[in-house]
Amino acid sequence: MNKPKVSNAIIRRLPRYRRYLGYLQTKGIKKVSSNELSELIGYTASQIRQDFNTFGEFGQQGYGYSVDYLYKEINKILGLDREYKTVVVGCGHLGQAITNYTYYYKIGFNIMGLFDVNQDIIGKVINDVEIMDSSELKDFVTREGVDIGIICVNRENAQAVADTLVEGGVKGIWNFAPIDIDIPKDVALESVHLSDSLHALSFMIKSLNEKEQ
Amino acid sequence: MNKPKVSNAIIRRLPRYRRYLGYLQTKGIKKVSSNELSELIGYTASQIRQDFNTFGEFGQQGYGYSVDYLYKEINKILGLDREYKTVVVGCGHLGQAITNYTYYYKIGFNIMGLFDVNQDIIGKVINDVEIMDSSELKDFVTREGVDIGIICVNRENAQAVADTLVEGGVKGIWNFAPIDIDIPKDVALESVHLSDSLHALSFMIKSLNEKEQ
Repeated sequence: MNKPKVSNAIIRRLPRYRRYLGYLQTKGIKKVSSNELSELIGYTASQIRQDFNTFGEFGQQGYGYSVDYLYKEINKILGLDREYKTVVVGCGHLGQAITNYTYYYKIGFNIMGLFDVNQDIIGKVINDVEIMDSSELKDFVTREGVDIGIICVNRENAQAVADTLVEGGVKGIWNFAPIDIDIPKDVALESVHLSDSLHALSFMIKSLNEKEQ
Repeated sequence: MNKPKVSNAIIRRLPRYRRYLGYLQTKGIKKVSSNELSELIGYTASQIRQDFNTFGEFGQQGYGYSVDYLYKEINKILGLDREYKTVVVGCGHLGQAITNYTYYYKIGFNIMGLFDVNQDIIGKVINDVEIMDSSELKDFVTREGVDIGIICVNRENAQAVADTLVEGGVKGIWNFAPIDIDIPKDVALESVHLSDSLHALSFMIKSLNEKEQ
């Protein structure tokens, strides 16, 4: 696992801050205090102030934070002030769902290549991008300077796809296969463990049941 | 947002403990210390001991934890020692991917109903379950005593689907629509924010880039 300079926990909190600040923007709210953010997000106000201090001075004591400024700064911190060249490997239902998701929300991840091994869907076009044969993956990644590979293949093929992406020169991998994959330390890896989320839901249901009894 | 007795942070850690313990089981490992778990998962050893103490005594000082026992106990704590009757609403690519995921891994969530508004796919069968018309959702949920509704519809329709599920009597909602939905406090809600994960990846890529410079 890669270890950037800041803790794993703050990496998890920053996207949440961004999401809630975006929500405040849609409501037309311009200023927010750490106490108000605490109320909204569920972290303590002191945690929030400490997190923001890690990256610089975003607010003035007693005046709160500017929502627009904070949102923009967090975007920069997260590296979202640029475009990422992205490919999706595995174009089954999950791959197509993820492709639609990133395409529809235009969130800075430009999907420029889709890959699969299934001859029946190679050549099919999704959101203006044609599905190519996975045998072309490495060359494409190298030639186009692809930044991110999204792995939507099954558990059995995930490591081989990761290896190919790394050989091609990607900077990061977003992995949806339910398996821990090994990659070099200089490539970022984010695995989505849907089961963790489902098990958290199970725990909440159990807790609510116990409360009622 | 619902507030069970234990903190939001530990709800996030427990499924991870479970996942890594399952990994140790597949390796045939029987005993593990909090230090070894710390190495594997990335939380501090004292955090791990504190978490386990919240729920009871799982190990003996200096002897480590029994992997099998701990896995079983965490399953119980998470409420995974039972089956949940589950429905999926929205059977586009995402809904079908999630249906396949839960079906394939047989993880205690029994998908007994699929629903959509699209007349072209109503009647289609996925993993032995027929897609029904969403107009039948509420009656089905009530009649069958469905526990969990999985929302895979678009942002615009997510709240209406959540309302119907709640009226039908579900205990929990697993929401994939990129929107905050409102539900009563006695229903558990877990929203999957894929963008948070993608933005964490972006941050890791940026941090690795900065390291290289």
